[in-house]
Order: sequence, then C-alpha cells, then structure tokens
Amino acid sequence: MSSNGVGVGVGVGVRPGNVPVYHGSDLKVVDRRVRIAELVFRCVICGLGVLAAALIGTDTQVKVIFSIQKKAKFTDMKALVFLVVANGIAASYCFLQVLRCVVSILRGNVLFNKPLAWIIFSGDQVIAYLTLAAVAAAAQSAVFAKLGQQELQWMKICTMYGKFCNQVGEGIASALVVSLCMGALASLSAFNLFRLYGDNKGKNSSGRW
Amino acid sequence: MSSNGVGVGVGVGVRPGNVPVYHGSDLKVVDRRVRIAELVFRCVICGLGVLAAALIGTDTQVKVIFSIQKKAKFTDMKALVFLVVANGIAASYCFLQVLRCVVSILRGNVLFNKPLAWIIFSGDQVIAYLTLAAVAAAAQSAVFAKLGQQELQWMKICTMYGKFCNQVGEGIASALVVSLCMGALASLSAFNLFRLYGDNKGKNSSGRW
Repeated sequence: MSSNGVGVGVGVGVRPGNVPVYHGSDLKVVDRRVRIAELVFRCVICGLGVLAAALIGTDTQVKVIFSIQKKAKFTDMKALVFLVVANGIAASYCFLQVLRCVVSILRGNVLFNKPLAWIIFSGDQVIAYLTLAAVAAAAQSAVFAKLGQQELQWMKICTMYGKFCNQVGEGIASALVVSLCMGALASLSAFNLFRLYGDNKGKNSSGRW
Repeated sequence: MSSNGVGVGVGVGVRPGNVPVYHGSDLKVVDRRVRIAELVFRCVICGLGVLAAALIGTDTQVKVIFSIQKKAKFTDMKALVFLVVANGIAASYCFLQVLRCVVSILRGNVLFNKPLAWIIFSGDQVIAYLTLAAVAAAAQSAVFAKLGQQELQWMKICTMYGKFCNQVGEGIASALVVSLCMGALASLSAFNLFRLYGDNKGKNSSGRW
C-alpha cells in the first residue's frame, strides 16, 4: 500500500463486502461536499415540488359573465395536470431519497453498492427528464394562455382569469427550479455511480479503439 | 503488476501525459462497445435531427376559404420554430462530435483528458435537456392543434390543415427519437467522464459522512 495519496486497488472498493483503504484527505472533502450537495438538492426539490403542486392544484377562479358562472381550474388544461403529477412524483421520490441519505449519513455508510447506485442514477435521470418535459409543456400552454395565437384565433384567457394565471405562473417557476435541481442531481448521481467504474481507466492509451 | 484482470494504478490514467497500463480484455471490450454506441447514437441524432428540422421547416399548406387564401407554415407556432432550431443545433453539434470520434478512433486515442471529457459531458447534457424541452413544448402545441381546447374555445386546426399537421407529427416523432438518443448519449458521456474520478473510490467505508 502506498501513502502518497493514491490508493492501490486490487479488486476492492467496488464490492460492498470489502472494506477499501483510504488515502488523501482532499478526496474525503470532495465526498463530503457531494453528499451535502445531494441532501440540499433533494430537500429543495421536495419542498419546491410540493409547493408547485399545491400552487397549481389549489388554483381556481370564478368569473360571472352575463349571469353565467365560469370556473377556471387546473384540470381544464392537461399540461397543468401533468405538471402537478410530475412534481408530486418528484417530491415523493426525493422525500424517500432524503430518508436514505439521512440513514446512510447516520450509519456512516459510503455508497459502494453498484446495484443501488444504478437504481438511484436511473431514478434521478427519469425524474429529471419527466419534470423538464412537464415544465416545458406547461410553459408552452401558459404562453398560449397569456399571449393567445392570433393566426389560429386562439384567444388570450389571462385577461379574463388574471389571478388564476398569476398563480399558475408561480407554480411553473417553482417547477422550473425543481427540474433544474433534478438535472444537477442527475449529474451528481452519475458521478456517484460511474466513479465506481474507475478501474476501467487503467487501459492502453494506444488501443485500437 | 497483477494479471488477474485488475489494474494497479499509481497516479496514472487521469493525466493525459502518462501512458497507463492495461490489464483485462473484458474492460477493452466494454470500452470498445461504449465507443461504438457513442458513434452510432451521434450518427442517428445527426441524421434524425436534420430530418426533423427539414420535415417541419419545409412544411406548408395553402387553403382557400371563401376566396381568401390562408397559408399554414411552421413559423405560425413558436414551439415549432424552437423545435427546428433545437434539432438544427443538436445535428450540428453531433456532426462535430462524430468528426472527433472518427479522428480519435483513427488515431487510436482513448479519452483520458479531463477538461475535454467535461466539455463533452456538459455539451451533451445541455443538448439533451434542450431537445427534450423543445419536443415537449411542440408536442403540447400539437395536442392543442389536433384536439383543440373546448373549455377555452381554442378550435382544432388539424381538421383544416390535415397534410400540414401530419408532416409536423412526423417531425415531432423524429425529434422525440433524437431527444431519447441524446439522453442515452448524456449517460454515456457521464460514464466516460466520471470513471476518470475512480481514484476516489478507495476511501474509508466507515467514514463520518
């Protein structure tokens, strides 16, 4: 074993049963920062996901036009339903992940379990793409509602339902932050997964492929 | 040096100036497959990106209604313009990356350059999220155009412009495949980047964090 800050790995580290050896305090610092960042991102997503779903899910406005009562609610627009569902899923998923993070911190575990790292990576990727797609679709609907589409004779509805539209806007802003955080989190979990494949790096740099 | 398929790395592999040693033919196979997959994905994205942009960008239909000529074109809908631009960017980006892949294959280089790996990873991530957001927004617009929105009195326009809508649908399908391939590619480049950080794995499994 060397003591120059570089580990000499002989099949250790990637198997959960083994206890790998540690050298180099800078790596410890990086690992600690990654874990703190992960926990912070997951808490933010959990909070803002619930906020976004609540803002849009509870949004209603009643207008009386020529004695006819018209009620705007989020189920009138499928994109908003999709956004509420996607943010609900993201918040629930991140809540479970926060529990896992806290348990692993309390137990002092380090993630060396490849199957678990794969599950977390896949989950984060799916949720990141899901939340982004939901935000993009909802934002597109919001643009139509706010500006209308002259060429297609789709009229603006935000002139009629101003308060409803503002609250939807706040929900979309919150959901946008959720999807950006999920993107960052997906990169973090890719880092946590693929560094377990670091053994691969010792290969011939003049290889045929 | 061991010969049991596990590399003994002492500070090599992550610095481009060094020539790392290679053990284990299974790792060579994995690396070869990753490179083939990367090249195939980038070629598919390049081809389908151009196809999607061309299908939507060249799509027009003229209707005569009560002697008034009406022309539908993709610039009538901002989401379609966004989709054309996003797929144009993705195709150009992947074309450059295909050139890089071919050069590195011809030269027999293996990617051990951390800054370059970071640039490729970041580029792939941005393009993946960009193309997905564009597809989601365009799909949402297409749903409105196809089904209308009864509650908001937004009428269907695909009954009027059937051929135009069909071609847009083909373009969106092509763009969807592009964004799925970009997602897979972003994971591949995350693998290529973060396995360079494999030195980190040799750490204390009973660490405080």
